[in-house]
This record gives sequence, C-alpha cells and structure tokens, in this order.
Amino acid sequence: MTDVDDPADHGDVADPTELAERVRDGEFRLHELDDHADRASAAAARRRLLEAETGADLDAVGGYAFDAADTEGNVENLLGAVQVPMGVAGPLPIDGGAVSGERYLPLATTEGALVASVNRGCGVIRAAGGASARVLKSRMTRAPVFRVAGVGEAERVVEWVRNHRETLREAAESTTSHGELVDVTPYVVGDSVFLRFGYDTKDAMGMNMATIATQAASEVVERETPAALVALSGNLCTDKKPAAINAVEGRGRSVVADVEIPAAVVEERLHAPPAAIAEVNTRKNHLGSAKASSLGFNAQAANVVAAAFLATGQDAAQVVEGANAITSVEVRKRALYASVSLASLEVGTVGGGTTLPTQSEALSVLGVGGGGDPPGANADALAEVIAAGALAGELSLLGALASSNLASAHEQLGR
Amino acid sequence: MTDVDDPADHGDVADPTELAERVRDGEFRLHELDDHADRASAAAARRRLLEAETGADLDAVGGYAFDAADTEGNVENLLGAVQVPMGVAGPLPIDGGAVSGERYLPLATTEGALVASVNRGCGVIRAAGGASARVLKSRMTRAPVFRVAGVGEAERVVEWVRNHRETLREAAESTTSHGELVDVTPYVVGDSVFLRFGYDTKDAMGMNMATIATQAASEVVERETPAALVALSGNLCTDKKPAAINAVEGRGRSVVADVEIPAAVVEERLHAPPAAIAEVNTRKNHLGSAKASSLGFNAQAANVVAAAFLATGQDAAQVVEGANAITSVEVRKRALYASVSLASLEVGTVGGGTTLPTQSEALSVLGVGGGGDPPGANADALAEVIAAGALAGELSLLGALASSNLASAHEQLGR
Amino acid sequence: MTDVDDPADHGDVADPTELAERVRDGEFRLHELDDHADRASAAAARRRLLEAETGADLDAVGGYAFDAADTEGNVENLLGAVQVPMGVAGPLPIDGGAVSGERYLPLATTEGALVASVNRGCGVIRAAGGASARVLKSRMTRAPVFRVAGVGEAERVVEWVRNHRETLREAAESTTSHGELVDVTPYVVGDSVFLRFGYDTKDAMGMNMATIATQAASEVVERETPAALVALSGNLCTDKKPAAINAVEGRGRSVVADVEIPAAVVEERLHAPPAAIAEVNTRKNHLGSAKASSLGFNAQAANVVAAAFLATGQDAAQVVEGANAITSVEVRKRALYASVSLASLEVGTVGGGTTLPTQSEALSVLGVGGGGDPPGANADALAEVIAAGALAGELSLLGALASSNLASAHEQLGR
Amino acid sequence: MTDVDDPADHGDVADPTELAERVRDGEFRLHELDDHADRASAAAARRRLLEAETGADLDAVGGYAFDAADTEGNVENLLGAVQVPMGVAGPLPIDGGAVSGERYLPLATTEGALVASVNRGCGVIRAAGGASARVLKSRMTRAPVFRVAGVGEAERVVEWVRNHRETLREAAESTTSHGELVDVTPYVVGDSVFLRFGYDTKDAMGMNMATIATQAASEVVERETPAALVALSGNLCTDKKPAAINAVEGRGRSVVADVEIPAAVVEERLHAPPAAIAEVNTRKNHLGSAKASSLGFNAQAANVVAAAFLATGQDAAQVVEGANAITSVEVRKRALYASVSLASLEVGTVGGGTTLPTQSEALSVLGVGGGGDPPGANADALAEVIAAGALAGELSLLGALASSNLASAHEQLGR
Repeated sequence: MTDVDDPADHGDVADPTELAERVRDGEFRLHELDDHADRASAAAARRRLLEAETGADLDAVGGYAFDAADTEGNVENLLGAVQVPMGVAGPLPIDGGAVSGERYLPLATTEGALVASVNRGCGVIRAAGGASARVLKSRMTRAPVFRVAGVGEAERVVEWVRNHRETLREAAESTTSHGELVDVTPYVVGDSVFLRFGYDTKDAMGMNMATIATQAASEVVERETPAALVALSGNLCTDKKPAAINAVEGRGRSVVADVEIPAAVVEERLHAPPAAIAEVNTRKNHLGSAKASSLGFNAQAANVVAAAFLATGQDAAQVVEGANAITSVEVRKRALYASVSLASLEVGTVGGGTTLPTQSEALSVLGVGGGGDPPGANADALAEVIAAGALAGELSLLGALASSNLASAHEQLGR
Repeated sequence: MTDVDDPADHGDVADPTELAERVRDGEFRLHELDDHADRASAAAARRRLLEAETGADLDAVGGYAFDAADTEGNVENLLGAVQVPMGVAGPLPIDGGAVSGERYLPLATTEGALVASVNRGCGVIRAAGGASARVLKSRMTRAPVFRVAGVGEAERVVEWVRNHRETLREAAESTTSHGELVDVTPYVVGDSVFLRFGYDTKDAMGMNMATIATQAASEVVERETPAALVALSGNLCTDKKPAAINAVEGRGRSVVADVEIPAAVVEERLHAPPAAIAEVNTRKNHLGSAKASSLGFNAQAANVVAAAFLATGQDAAQVVEGANAITSVEVRKRALYASVSLASLEVGTVGGGTTLPTQSEALSVLGVGGGGDPPGANADALAEVIAAGALAGELSLLGALASSNLASAHEQLGR
Repeated sequence: MTDVDDPADHGDVADPTELAERVRDGEFRLHELDDHADRASAAAARRRLLEAETGADLDAVGGYAFDAADTEGNVENLLGAVQVPMGVAGPLPIDGGAVSGERYLPLATTEGALVASVNRGCGVIRAAGGASARVLKSRMTRAPVFRVAGVGEAERVVEWVRNHRETLREAAESTTSHGELVDVTPYVVGDSVFLRFGYDTKDAMGMNMATIATQAASEVVERETPAALVALSGNLCTDKKPAAINAVEGRGRSVVADVEIPAAVVEERLHAPPAAIAEVNTRKNHLGSAKASSLGFNAQAANVVAAAFLATGQDAAQVVEGANAITSVEVRKRALYASVSLASLEVGTVGGGTTLPTQSEALSVLGVGGGGDPPGANADALAEVIAAGALAGELSLLGALASSNLASAHEQLGR
Repeated sequence: MTDVDDPADHGDVADPTELAERVRDGEFRLHELDDHADRASAAAARRRLLEAETGADLDAVGGYAFDAADTEGNVENLLGAVQVPMGVAGPLPIDGGAVSGERYLPLATTEGALVASVNRGCGVIRAAGGASARVLKSRMTRAPVFRVAGVGEAERVVEWVRNHRETLREAAESTTSHGELVDVTPYVVGDSVFLRFGYDTKDAMGMNMATIATQAASEVVERETPAALVALSGNLCTDKKPAAINAVEGRGRSVVADVEIPAAVVEERLHAPPAAIAEVNTRKNHLGSAKASSLGFNAQAANVVAAAFLATGQDAAQVVEGANAITSVEVRKRALYASVSLASLEVGTVGGGTTLPTQSEALSVLGVGGGGDPPGANADALAEVIAAGALAGELSLLGALASSNLASAHEQLGR
C-alpha cells in the first residue's frame, strides 16, 4: 500500500471521479495522480478534471488502444490519445543498401490529398522500374558547450580533445551496449568550446543514448581540462532547430533516393513532358528556395517525412531537420532523372514511440520493426523507404504543378 | 448502385476479406477500394491486404474512434489510425491579446519527459503570476512563380502588380467568403517573377484558402501581363521548408510570449540563479545556434510546437516553420526575464485535422474550437497558448541544464 | 597658433622627423599629429615614426596623388595610400533603366585573370547584342533596436509606429535635403523592438544620411513611446554582414542583368554548348550552393563587385552584401539565357570615396560621376553596369569550367 | 621584333597616342596592346583611348608607383592604379600563437571614422594589458563537383575516395612544393558528388595552389572511378559566397581574439559600464542578427577585415567570408570579456597582391612580409593581428552605441 509505483496497490483509490475531486481539493496535483492510481485511472481522473474545468468532452481522447502502463517512457500526465488517420501508399519498389524489393509506406496525416499524391508518385516509380536509395552517412550527434577562461585555454582544451579521443570513446561507450563514438569535432567561439560528439547508434534514433554517453565523456573533459560544462546540449548538435550544420554535415541518416523515368512514363502519368517538370523544379525548388534563403530545396519533403514519422513512432519535432532536403531533376536522353537528398533524417526502429501498438504495426508493414541484422540495418531501411517516399511525393507534386499550368496554357490558347 | 459515393450502395461488396481478394486479383486497385465499399470497409480491406502481403498485424491500427466517412478530407487510402499518447500541462495563466486567464495545454507525444518538462515550466510561470503573449502579425502566404522573357518584362510585370493590387484583391477574394488579401510582394530572379500573396485567413490555418485565391489572382496576372505561370507555389511562400523569409517576415501567426520571474521563484523552482540560466541561454541558444548557422535560436520550441500541433489537429509538417523561434533571457533587478518569439506559427481552429474527434476535444480543452468571435480570435488564442507553452518548455530545459551543471560543479568541489 | 584646425599655422612644426620625435617623446600621440601639422606633414611624420619602430620602408605608401587635406572625410591617422592596379573591361553594351549604350568598366584588383575573364564575358555579351539591366528596388536601410518592458509594450510601440509614419518621416527628412523615408518596418523579438527604416538616398550610397535621419526619428520614438533606444543599428539593417534579410528584401540597389546569347556565339566564344554551361550552373551554383547553405548562388559575382567597388570609391566592406547574388542559366531555343540578380548592391556616385582623384576618374570613365539627372540616376546606372559586369564574369567563368572539362573529356576519349 | 613578350622590342611602337589610334582603327584590340608595347606604354595607350572615348581625364589613375611590368600576375588590361588612403591604428599588444608584442595595423579605407574607431579600440586593449589571439584551424579548400549515374554510383565513388586518400594526396601534392593535402570530405546531392579538398597552404592564401592540386587529384578520380568532372569548383569550397559551410567548418584561417578589460578601463574609455556594452552586443549582434537570419553576428568586423585586406594586398572579394564573425561579450567580476571569432579569414603573406610596393610596405609595418619561419607563421600572425584589430573595432563601436544612448538618456532625464 505504501509502494506508490505498483498500480495494483492503488485499487482502492482508483475511482477517477473521486481522484479528480481530490486533485480539485488540493490534496495532490495533476502530475501526482500517478502516485495514487494506476496510469489508466490517473488518465481517466485527469479527463474528468479537465472536463469539469473546461467543459470539454474527452470521450474520444479516452478511447485509446494501448496499455496506459506501457506509455511511461512516452508521456507524462497522460490523458489518453490523439488519433491521426493513417493511410498507405505503394507498393514502392526500392533497390537500396538496406532494403530491397517492394514496400508499402504507411502515412499518418490529417491533410487531404497527401497520401493520394505520394501514392501517385509510387505508381510513377513502379512504372519506371523502381527507385534506388542509399544511406551515405549515419551519425547521431550531441554537442555540449563548455566555458573556458579565454582563447588560450580554448586552444589547450581543443588540443587535449584531439589527443584523447580514445579516452573519450571509452568514457562514452561505457554507458551503452550498442552505441559507438565515431568522432568528436571541436568548435570555438570566444570562451565557449563546443564538442560535437558523433555516434553510430544502430537501430535507435539515438538521442538518449548520445546524451548519456556524452554526459560521461563531458565529465572526463571537465576533470582533465580547465573546461567547465555549461550545457550538455550547446545547439551545435543541432536537435530540432533548422540548422545549416545538419544540412551540411548530416545528423541521423544522410540518405539519397533517386530514379530515372522513361519520358513516355512521365508524359503518361504526370501529364507533362520531362522539360516542364525540370523547369518547375528549377524555378521553384532552386531559384525560389535560393531567394527565400531556405535550407530546404524541395517541394514537399516535410509532408512525407512528417506523415511517415507519425505513422512509425518517430519524434515529430525532428521533422524540422528532416526538411533539410534537396530535390534535383534533370532531363536525360528520353528520360527524366530525379533525386531527393535528405541530409538529416533521424529515425529508429527501437525505443521512443516505436513500441506503441499502432506505431509498431506500421513498422511491421514496412518489415523493419525492432533491431536489424546487422544492427542498424532496420533503421537504415526505414530511412531509405522514407527517402523513396519523399521522392514519390516530389515527382507527384512537381508533375501536378507542371501539368496544371500546361492545362491552363492550353485553355488560354484555346480561347 | 452506380453512385460510387454512397456507401449505403456498397453493402453487397463490403466484406473486407472479399474486397481484399478482389484487389489481389487485380480487379481494382488499393485506392479504388473506396469506389466499391464504404470507407470503413475499404480501410478494413486494406488492412487485410497488407496483413496478407507483409505479415503485419493491423488490429490496433484498425481500432480507431472516428467515423471513417468523416476523414475524406484528411486522408486517402485509409488504413485506420495511429494513436499518439496525449498528456496535459498546466494550468498556464496567460495575459494575451486573444486569450486571458488559465489554460490547460494538451500535448501529444511519444517522447518521455516532454510533458513533464513543459508542466514544470508552467509551474514556474504560475508562480511568477503568468505569462504575456501577443500575436503581432497574421498572414498566410502563397507565392506563385511566373516566367517572363527577361528583366525588362519582369520590370513591367512588377509595375503592373504594384498598380493593380485592387484588381488582384478582387480576383483573390472572389474565391473565399472569409479570407482577405492583405498584401502582394513581388520578387524577381532573372526571368522568374515571384509574387508573395499574404492573406488574413481568420481562424483557418489557410493554406487551401490561400492557394485557391492565389490561383484566381494568378489567372488575372497571366491574362493581363506577359507573365506565364510556372508553378502556383514558387517556394517563396515558404511552406514546410526552413526558410529565412518566414523567420524574417513571418507566416501564419508571428507570436511572442514572455514572463518576468522573481529571482526567488527561479532559484526555488529551477534550482539555479537567474545568471546561470541566462548564461546557458547565451552560450547555447545564441552562440551555439549562431555557430551552427541555425534559423532556430531556442532550446526546444519544436518539441512543444509539435506536441501541441499533433494534439490539436494542426499540420505536423508545419512544425518546420514553427521551429523558427528565438528565445531571449535577461537578468533584471531581482528577476529573470524570458521570452520566446515564434515567427511563423501556422495554426487554425477550423478545417484540416481540427474536426476529428480527439483533436476537436483537445481544442475544447483550450476553449478555442471552431470559429472565433471576432473571426480569427480563436486561432490567435491558440497561437498565444502555444507560445506560452513553448516559453514554459524553454524555462524548464534551460533550468535543467543550468542546475545539473551547478550540481555537477558542487559535486566536483565537494571532492 | 592656437587654431589647431588651420594647417597654415603649423608651418613651424611641420618637419616630419621632428614631429615624429615629439610623438616618440610622448609629447603627443599619433592621432594628435593632425593638431600640430598639416595632414600631409602629419602623414609623413607617421611614416617616419613607423619606419623607426618597425624597420619598414614606407616610400611607396608616401607616394600618393591625392591632396592629403582632401581625405579628412575618408581616413584618420593618414599614412599615405595603397595603390591597387586598375584594369578595364569592355566595352559592354547595356540596355538598362538608367544606362543605355556601351560602357567601359574599370576594375581594381590584385588577382590575376579577373579582368581578362570579365573582358571575355563582355565580348560574349557584345556578340549577343548587349545585356539588359534594371534596378528594381532602391532602399538604404538603418534599423535601430529599442528596449521595452515586454511584449505588451512592444505591441503598443509597433502600433504607434504604424499610426505615425508621417511623424517619423518628418523627423527623419528634417535632417537631409535629398533623402526620403520610404518605409518603416517593425520587428519584435521579446522585449526588443527593431524598426527598419528604408530611404531613397538618390545618388548617395546613403549610410550616413540614413543613420542621421534615423537618429532623429528614433528620438521621436523615444519621446512618444515607452521604447528606449539601445543601439542606433540593431543589425536588422543589415550592414556588412551576410544576412538573409538583405538577400530577401534587398538593400541599396536590387538589380538584375540578363542576356540571351545565340547558341553559335556560345559555342564559338565559350567553347562549350549551352547545355554544358547550364549544367555547370545547376550543379555548382544551385546544388553546390544549396548544399553549402549559402546565401550566394553564383560563380564569382563578388570578384566583379569588389573590383568595381574599389575602382569607383565604394565601401569595400559592403562587398559582403554585394555577394548575395543568384545566377540563373537556361537553354532556350538555339540560345542560352543567363541572368545575375544582385539583391543588395550598395553604391553611390557622390560622397564617400567617390571624390578622391583616381576613383573620380574611374566614375568619369563610366560617365556616372556626381549627382544624376534625375537624382539617383547615376547610382542606378552604376548599379546596372556593375550587374552587367557581374553577368560577364559569370558567363566567362561558367564557360571556362564547362570547356575545360569538355577538353579533358575529349583528351580522355582520345586515349 | 617577333618576341611579343619582350617589352624592349616594342620601343618603336610605344608611343601611347599612336598605339591608341591603332586600336581605334581596329588594327588590334584593347587587350592586345600588351603584345605591341611594354605594359606601361600599353596602359598609357589605354588611358588615351578611354579619355578619347569617354571624356574622362585619367591623370591620377596614371600616376602609380609600382612598375607596370611587375603587375602581370595581378591585372590585365592595365590602366594604372586606384589610390586608397591608408591610415594606421595601434599599437596593439597581442599575445598570440604566432605573434607576440605590439603591432601597428595599417588600414586602407575611404570611409571616415573607421581608423579612428579601431584606434580607440586599440587604446582600450592597451589599457587592458593586451589581447590574446589564436589561429585554431588553417585549411584552404577547393571542392570540385562530379557527375555520376545515380546514388548507387555515388556511394561507390565516395567509398573509393575514403579508401584512396593517400593516392589523392600524392596526386595533389605532386603539383606543389609547399602545400599539403590534409583532408578530403565527400558530399552527395543526387547524382552530383562534391569532394571538398582541404590544404595547408602555409604562408600563401592558397587558392591557386589548391586549385592546381585539386585539378590533379580530380584527374585521378576521373580515371579511377566512373565520376566525370563537371566543374573544378562546385561551390562547396566556398569561395567568395557567404556560405554556412565556411562559418561552420572554416576556410583559410579560423582565428579568435579576445580580451578581458577592467571595468574601470571600460567606463573611462568607452564611457559606458560593462553591462551597457553587453546589452548592446546581445540585442544587436545576437538577437538582431538572429532575426535577420545572418551569418554574421558582429558589429563591424567586415570594416576592419576589408581595410586590412586592402592595405596588405589580400583578395578584396574574400571579405565576404571574412564577415562570418561572431562577437561575444560578457560581464565578469569587475571586468568585461569580449571576443571575436572569425571562421574563415583567408590571408597570405606571399603571392597575390602582397608583392606590390605599397602592400609589401604595409606587411613590413606588421613584420609579416614574405614566408614565415616556420612556413605558415607569417600568415598565422597576420590573421591574429587582423582578428585583434577586429576586436578593437567591435569594442569601439559597441562602446560608442552604448555611450551615446546613455548620453541621450541623461539628456532626457535632465529635461
């Protein structure tokens, strides 16, 4: 009865309405409900309380399919769940480094036309014989910032780091059974020293692993040098901010997908000649993005990344970096070549939201749930499928823009 | 029986297993299922098919609470739903331009610690007497790109646009009962002319409204000038790409939230003195982000934006622009001032995913569901609450970073 | 004798060697030399002093052609002059908004091959019948930053500014006989309010004019609102930093030059077919710059801008913004179209370095020295010529890259 | 008489007026003058010609001090020289990695107040006991772009490059006696492969050396892999464009200068307390630059870089990258700490414009002319002095902004 961590012990107080009243009476607080009831009852109590306080009806939110007890690592102050419609696009034939064959891509979204658009692109890729895809770099990063006295001391810390990579590797890897520290890059701004640690985190997206390992390595830096840790993340990581360092050097998976499509297929399915599609890509994705001073040179990569992330239990806030994508299109002899290069796609097939029931099912559809063989192969495969899906989305939208203008041009000429 | 839009007519073919077989037999395709059955049965058929093809089990995905028929505007090739755990933070007292009083903030996420972190920040803000928030600009944009012969012609088109704003306004507004065309800004790159149309879309996020209105206005431009439309979106909008034009000029709502916190509150609740928190903000959010060439100068704004977007039915891909945020912290006399400025937060309380049951309930918790009075007030309020929530997240994380290093410093000193 | 401003009074102490000794004896300081001698003698004394202190020989530096007394507005602690070789490219036929006909472009540089490269590009443009050029926007900006209590106050200041543009215009224009305040755009970041004042400064580059006028307007803002001025420049101007706000909204002159070149001319003079040149432009200037997260999408615009700035007495530090250029190339029917769009070219034909003898002569070569008729026409013309010169540089370098690879390809095939 | 390279042979045709007439008569072209006369006479002829064609008077331009024959590597179509006033700031005491002791900094500029401003900053640094400075990275880069068939081939090329660095090093270094290839970093965008070659170029700025060496290495890549060279520079270098890759990874010298100034010195010399100067830095250089989406977070670094570059014969177009600077200011106990971090300062003390008489004299003033001991030491020293000079400029301008607002505040209070 005194063990607040065991939901079984809370049977006696698990009436949501009563619990809600006790919170209203100030006996304990909203987030302390989990100490007085199992997570499901606590969630129900929160819904009662919010219904009373705000007049909202939370029936649908309360109708979730997962086991509340299993979401401890995913959310606090649980209310229930939001349900996002999930559709499917494909099949999408891919010749990748980690994936080979046809895949269906589950996409969760509330924006009409998105799934249809990607699906149309998949059809184009199928008619072209399939897309290629490759993960070219895989590195989860964390970059603490340290304070030093000045640039003289900064130089000595940088020197120490360069000469003690093995020491740092040992400290970092002592905290993880899977992760490997691959590189440490120092950056100096005045009396701030940033160390960007890069890890191979296998099938995990790896932020937690990287953070814990970097904490251990940072303690060594603090002990062995005059540097004092100011923040375990100094924004050179860069997590969930649209930063050029990710666009240039990558984060998570750097992955490219491409396809060469016969001109006849382009015309038949996208209703526009290759040259028209290339023109839209140049004026919109290259010149327009350049003029907008954008880090994204694509049509709708973020749409596909966001929908695939939601469906498969990835971190939705990391759509920010996923949008650092460049789409290229070129007219080749009787064909159209198109590619999407995603510099910083952070994905995992273990941990985070991947173990929740609906998300886990979506990963099963892709055939990439859980740890891969060899480790990392599943997350690589997921990255390649998302990249190929993004390519499908680009082709479809570029085609739609090109063909609608051609149609409008014909109309005008017809007058 | 010939009316494929009426689900009632499809009773005879609505057996999912049979439908799935017919797709496998090539009788019709995955996306044509909706022509042969009601949406719910079609979704069930798709699940059967994918289960057969991939070995996945899609039970949880099939256990959705919304009416499949109601998701026609949200998704195609419906499979079911992904369920994302939803927690709640707050209450959060806000003195805003459109919101006043305490609000609970629903957050949907799979990343542990996020809701707890925002909740802690809400406690700090409560202890400080509440946050302020203001929407300072509201403008949904769409920027088509036109082809001209060269810069001479570009100059004439720009001139025409500057002299015919009223004509363009009439054409644009003829397509919408709510939207208002507020400005049109021309940009020229060689023989490409971009026109950035800015709309007041009231309580709608407004992308569709802006797109349709801009289509109408673009037809006028094509008719009256030598410019030829190449793409209805020329990426100067900029939608779902991390672009400086949004960070500078805004898109959707430009909203700022701030708070002044007594030093004693800071120390008691964040376990660090104001100066330590300011130092973390400077080295991480300013110097670190500067060195990373980032458009985001904050700690975790995207986390809060993403979780609030998911909970309330916003477009998850627009988290990309939502992350264009600047956090400022300064030590004042016996207090800490902190602010978050979100340049391009695209939100709506009508349309899109806002009408789905769980999302609609989350909006009700916030008291901002549906159209506002006056129009636009609800979306303004939502923007202000999200900004205040982002502020809570910043305070909490900056405090955690500062206090953990102080703790570690004490530990070291204690040795 | 007590009038330190009259050089004539200093005859008795104007012996450089003696002056240098008095500085070494600590009687007065290096920069106080001008109080004890005419500027030429003071400069000579400084040279003696530095020669003695550093062992350097400053004969060449002392051999300047201008009148030292005339450089009071250009430099302090005068030593003499640096001599930068000046070459000439052209003639360059231009159909511009402010310039019409052929122009020779003086270029000062120490980098071999630059003048030859631009000259070759001029030949291509001549063979194509000339380039077009247009100044599409002209606005010198200055953006002070003010401190307010918080976002509530920020909103009121922004409101006041929007309602009192005429008041601000009067205050600003009271300080200048030529400048006109065209717009004021407010930006808010937490408790910082930035006001970007945009001026038409006619033939002056206009930074000083804009600064003085903004100072006057800022005093009104401080008097009429709770805002307190923190810095007369808050970096949203943005002067001499590579900022997206300039790339997007422009600063100084936004100018575009373009040309359509018959395919035969391209092949004969650039030794590569149009498609090869377009490919280099796409892979280098678009994809490469995109991957580098660059604000410059061109081959060598900064080379031409820097050399023309030096030759004509512009501010060399403003080459930074001048490099915000986008080059576009497209294959047209039997022709190559090429353009250069310079977003923020800050130029003037009066004031600054334009009145020095050699710089003034260079402006005369261009036919744009001094004030234009109407005012602004000369600076517009200068911007158009520089843009056309930049276009020449782009064509030449793209051609050289394309042809050298073709040559190397042929060589390989020949083996 | 047939040896057109020997000026002595051209005595008979060296009359400028006659030469000019022959050009006007179409006998030969402007740039062919060097084939018919010595360079000085050819330059004189060009001046005659331009005077005749444009009405300009080119006497001052013709009054240059260098030997025309010595400028063959610096300029073509020589006219004469532009003379830019040179002043001096200092002395500036520096404790650097390559420089130690006091240095005078020659600055060439036409913008009044700049030298005075830097000089005032030098006084502050002197009173504080001197600045520190360190070159933390030194790497001249060149990044060719290659075409491959698609991402599969791209992966194989990247793999080859990673496994054959030694082969590439040998090829690259076979072209240079001084340069060393330090690293090669591959980047892939679709079917474009960029290889960023990084060299230690010792005392040379090194662009030419890097280009020639990279040409040789690229030929090996072409021979050994399926990659085809498209352009020897693919803009990931990035030369003379404001690119984040340089701000993040550096180019030329990455150098930091800093100083700690007693509060009393700050107040006495900058007329503002440390906190006021820190506030200006935060609101202007951090928040303002962040809002402007700038790559430069400083007050006037480009002014000092440009003036020092001009004085010492550096490439003026590279001021673009030199402006990628971050200034940090913090209030310490009874002191102000300030730093300037220049990510990509491309400087040399041999080659380019450094051998011209006036520029060479300026380098002598600094004591860094010619090759250093060890090689690279002179260019390092030059970078450190420029960084310290930039720091002086920052302190002076931040102080001026802070004090003038304080003065104005006092004035207002006095009313």
